[in-house]
Amino acid sequence: MPWDPTQMPDWQISLEAEKNMPKPEEVPDRLGLEKDEVIPYGRLCRLDYMKILQRLKDRPDGKYIEVTAVTPTPLGEGKTTTTLGLIEGLAKRGKNAGGCIRQPSSAPTFNIKGTAAGGGNALLIPMTEFSLGLTGDINNITNAHNLMMVALTARMQHETNYTDEELAKRGLRRLNIHPKKIEQRWVMDLGAQALRNIVIGLGNEMDGVTMQSGFMVSVASELMAILAMVRDLKDLRESLGRIIVAYDRQGNPITTEDLEVAGAMCAIMRESINPTLCWTAEYQPVMVHAGPFANIAVGQSSIIGDRIGLKLFEYHCTESGFGADIGFEKFVNVKCRHSGLKPNVSVIVATVRSLKMHGGGPAVVPGRPLDEAYTKENLPLLEKGIENLLHHIGIVKKSGVKPVVCINAFPTDTEEEHRLVRRYVEQAGARCAISNHWRYGGDGALELADAVIDACREEVDFKFFYPLEMPFMQRVEVIAREVYGADGVQWLPAAEAKAKVLQEKYPDFYTMMAKTHLSLSHDPNLKGVPKGWTLPIRDVLVFAGAKFLVPLCGEIRLVPGTSSDPAFRRIDVDVETGVVKGLF
Amino acid sequence: MPWDPTQMPDWQISLEAEKNMPKPEEVPDRLGLEKDEVIPYGRLCRLDYMKILQRLKDRPDGKYIEVTAVTPTPLGEGKTTTTLGLIEGLAKRGKNAGGCIRQPSSAPTFNIKGTAAGGGNALLIPMTEFSLGLTGDINNITNAHNLMMVALTARMQHETNYTDEELAKRGLRRLNIHPKKIEQRWVMDLGAQALRNIVIGLGNEMDGVTMQSGFMVSVASELMAILAMVRDLKDLRESLGRIIVAYDRQGNPITTEDLEVAGAMCAIMRESINPTLCWTAEYQPVMVHAGPFANIAVGQSSIIGDRIGLKLFEYHCTESGFGADIGFEKFVNVKCRHSGLKPNVSVIVATVRSLKMHGGGPAVVPGRPLDEAYTKENLPLLEKGIENLLHHIGIVKKSGVKPVVCINAFPTDTEEEHRLVRRYVEQAGARCAISNHWRYGGDGALELADAVIDACREEVDFKFFYPLEMPFMQRVEVIAREVYGADGVQWLPAAEAKAKVLQEKYPDFYTMMAKTHLSLSHDPNLKGVPKGWTLPIRDVLVFAGAKFLVPLCGEIRLVPGTSSDPAFRRIDVDVETGVVKGLF
Repeated sequence: MPWDPTQMPDWQISLEAEKNMPKPEEVPDRLGLEKDEVIPYGRLCRLDYMKILQRLKDRPDGKYIEVTAVTPTPLGEGKTTTTLGLIEGLAKRGKNAGGCIRQPSSAPTFNIKGTAAGGGNALLIPMTEFSLGLTGDINNITNAHNLMMVALTARMQHETNYTDEELAKRGLRRLNIHPKKIEQRWVMDLGAQALRNIVIGLGNEMDGVTMQSGFMVSVASELMAILAMVRDLKDLRESLGRIIVAYDRQGNPITTEDLEVAGAMCAIMRESINPTLCWTAEYQPVMVHAGPFANIAVGQSSIIGDRIGLKLFEYHCTESGFGADIGFEKFVNVKCRHSGLKPNVSVIVATVRSLKMHGGGPAVVPGRPLDEAYTKENLPLLEKGIENLLHHIGIVKKSGVKPVVCINAFPTDTEEEHRLVRRYVEQAGARCAISNHWRYGGDGALELADAVIDACREEVDFKFFYPLEMPFMQRVEVIAREVYGADGVQWLPAAEAKAKVLQEKYPDFYTMMAKTHLSLSHDPNLKGVPKGWTLPIRDVLVFAGAKFLVPLCGEIRLVPGTSSDPAFRRIDVDVETGVVKGLF
Repeated sequence: MPWDPTQMPDWQISLEAEKNMPKPEEVPDRLGLEKDEVIPYGRLCRLDYMKILQRLKDRPDGKYIEVTAVTPTPLGEGKTTTTLGLIEGLAKRGKNAGGCIRQPSSAPTFNIKGTAAGGGNALLIPMTEFSLGLTGDINNITNAHNLMMVALTARMQHETNYTDEELAKRGLRRLNIHPKKIEQRWVMDLGAQALRNIVIGLGNEMDGVTMQSGFMVSVASELMAILAMVRDLKDLRESLGRIIVAYDRQGNPITTEDLEVAGAMCAIMRESINPTLCWTAEYQPVMVHAGPFANIAVGQSSIIGDRIGLKLFEYHCTESGFGADIGFEKFVNVKCRHSGLKPNVSVIVATVRSLKMHGGGPAVVPGRPLDEAYTKENLPLLEKGIENLLHHIGIVKKSGVKPVVCINAFPTDTEEEHRLVRRYVEQAGARCAISNHWRYGGDGALELADAVIDACREEVDFKFFYPLEMPFMQRVEVIAREVYGADGVQWLPAAEAKAKVLQEKYPDFYTMMAKTHLSLSHDPNLKGVPKGWTLPIRDVLVFAGAKFLVPLCGEIRLVPGTSSDPAFRRIDVDVETGVVKGLF
């Protein structure tokens, strides 16, 4: 300990670390919880949020640290790795540290990306449970969401087959659902591209109404966004009941409450409101709770997880999806606004390699060796790419939160390269730390931990990027100009008409941008800091359950595909021991 | 205690009984298990089959009691209720009794039938967990099954888009899957009739291959049949790898192993091999494990559950789907043949009402009051219907297992009616007990318990209905004539041709009849004991993973529908307490 990640795959490190992993019955003592606040699930446990928050309601909150990143590249920046490494580093400095991260979708786990459990000595354990369903939250969301679709499609069928009198006998009124105005798809938490676009309801009159439909990945479900956002069970129940499933022929929304299915959906999801507890490879507590997509939804771990963590830990670390333009912006303007919590520090993760790509480095092709630009010192490329990092520092500073840049170090980085980044970062008024947590765990993250501890000492004058009173369309303008660096917004005519209606109708809904994460702009090909562009808004979606108005800035993939060389080929079980091999 | 089920719905009885339900940490003491053989999951726990069976391998088995029924009617016979009542009754007689029942599908839970948790004082608790996903086995099956479909459809897409060279670079050979010879559907554990018949793969070349497809309910998955049948993890892994997903253009089977997905499927299912422990309302231990459909699959709880139960209990009760023609026949010829276990007693459950329907009583229409034939004494109808019961007694006797008939009593039954049934049953050489477990729990089931204890004292000369060496087509003939009472079998030409090939190719596969449960014949409208009929075989399916050859005797519904007045309308959560209301 630490293990040598250049010699061992992550799943083997996890197996080794699991040997001393705290057992559920040790959790109350370790975390200062009452026995009945900890609900064991195999080697994991759920934390009973209601009991914990009630008992500790007068305890002051710990420091609130968010981890975000530069604009993501195919090279990966290691945001989860850094979150876990930071927690380990804080613990090495004697601090009571913990965190809350997102549950990964199975789609990338079984495809290419792997399990999102961090890596090396900054790993989330037990990796098997984390990667393969945890304590069932995504399954619960999948089932609750699909029950909503069953309620919708069965109702459409019965309204087709029965007269008003026959419906009335069953206590039903005719909803007149418009088959071309269905707002929801089915969900499955796999990369099932063959189910993106389907026709359902073939067969006879007992086999549903024939219509277009489709699946999306479960973590893109509005239910997942709701799980991330709710403050308690009452909030969950009410949010589930507000979901708009379709519109009727007069254009009125049809909700889950209209379909009388929201209560059953809440029953399916009832246990998922309690976060699941896992551990870093050095045995600090990390909750895993909610995992909404950051492109179309809020992209954050749950508010409930953060509320618990701030009561239990001196330093609570949480993670936002993608770069600061998406993850941090939503963290501030949506998550913190809804929770009322105030962050202290935002860690912006970057790697020398990713900055070089933003500086104009060559494309990366999976399966081919990495270009020399990335494996050898190249200061000009790096210097050019640093502007992306500086832009993200600027976004964080706008909120009053203190930025700490973490260079997630690679063996191929040179000291000169690290020095260059540090100089620019410090000039921009941010702290900078070089970190080797992947290689050395907490011992490798001491510089990062110190920078974060130091930054937490400063007072934060926390500001949203816009007041909630600002009309929706104006807010989009603010985000486009001040966060993304666009010259302005171009509303497509239909989107503009829709936006005007919606901002009147739902003035208190959050603004939830749906934009590619691969660029500060809407064009995933534009790296660095694109200049002289306008943000197009093609459509506006309504997530009434989560209270989101979602402006779409481009094509959003709701089902990741499964590639020709997916990870499931290499996953197997040792039948003598039950151990799962080959996760990465 | 007992509670008054005429005044309280089942979910409220469950809530009351749950107050004194043994906690997971009490299980080792109560069941004579080691601490590390019990894996807590919230209020439930899983039993570690590998450790338990290894440690207790030399302990003699307890008595093995199967519960079956007359031919099911829409009135319901109460088989699960009787299984649980029997366990409670045995415990009242001071016996160490327990059981293993099937996990219910969510499709009926959210539709009309309800949760299959028994009822009244013969109830499985906690009903909420039992009804809403238990410890995740059906979710695991759903995910593993759909990953297989993802592997299939993604492979078809990539073989369409890539050359042989491009495939070879990824270590893939061209499988040449025939798009019209796909043997599997997707699964979802809901009554999603709109997904029965669908077209998938619309869109562009990255969105799959356009073809017909469909969903079925998860419990109809071959994976569920496999879970019920396997003896250990090795058996599970091998069975999963044998599943035939499709055929290639030369007619060769394409298996999950060919798709390199069987290991990942096993990883998803790894925890489901350990049965989950629940309780009767009087706190006897009852495992819940596997729940394959009895029409197309084996319809039994798991072999692993029975193996554990026979080691832990003096009297282990297990349940087979539907009537003795289906459930018991498969119990003997498939389940016991595969497990090597020998049953002692079979309890055949009947109600006076259901026998009257078999005697020609009027049809029952949901929502309308029950006809007087069922609520008042009617000896002629009953006497005519008893022949169905006698037929089932005959089926059980053929195996050498001792039949005990249980009349699950209703308040509207008369003593004269009970006397009439008892006379015929005893004449047929079976024991007979009138039981009031729904109303009085174990105290109401003492007569049944005594009859079972008494029957267990007899030696059993256990016989299969046919030797495994008998060719497949001949076995079907034996089952049709000797179990169903048909005059013979009529093979449709295509089915006959297929059967001849398959019986050569898979001589050691089990014969797994797929027939309606609503009649001894293939025609669900024929009640009582149909005479002068021939069993048609329309097709033969191959479940190579489970090692089943499945002769189809009629239309088999793979997706139950959701009706116009489904149960989900009445299910909700109390947001103050988290309690689920309205399950029934």
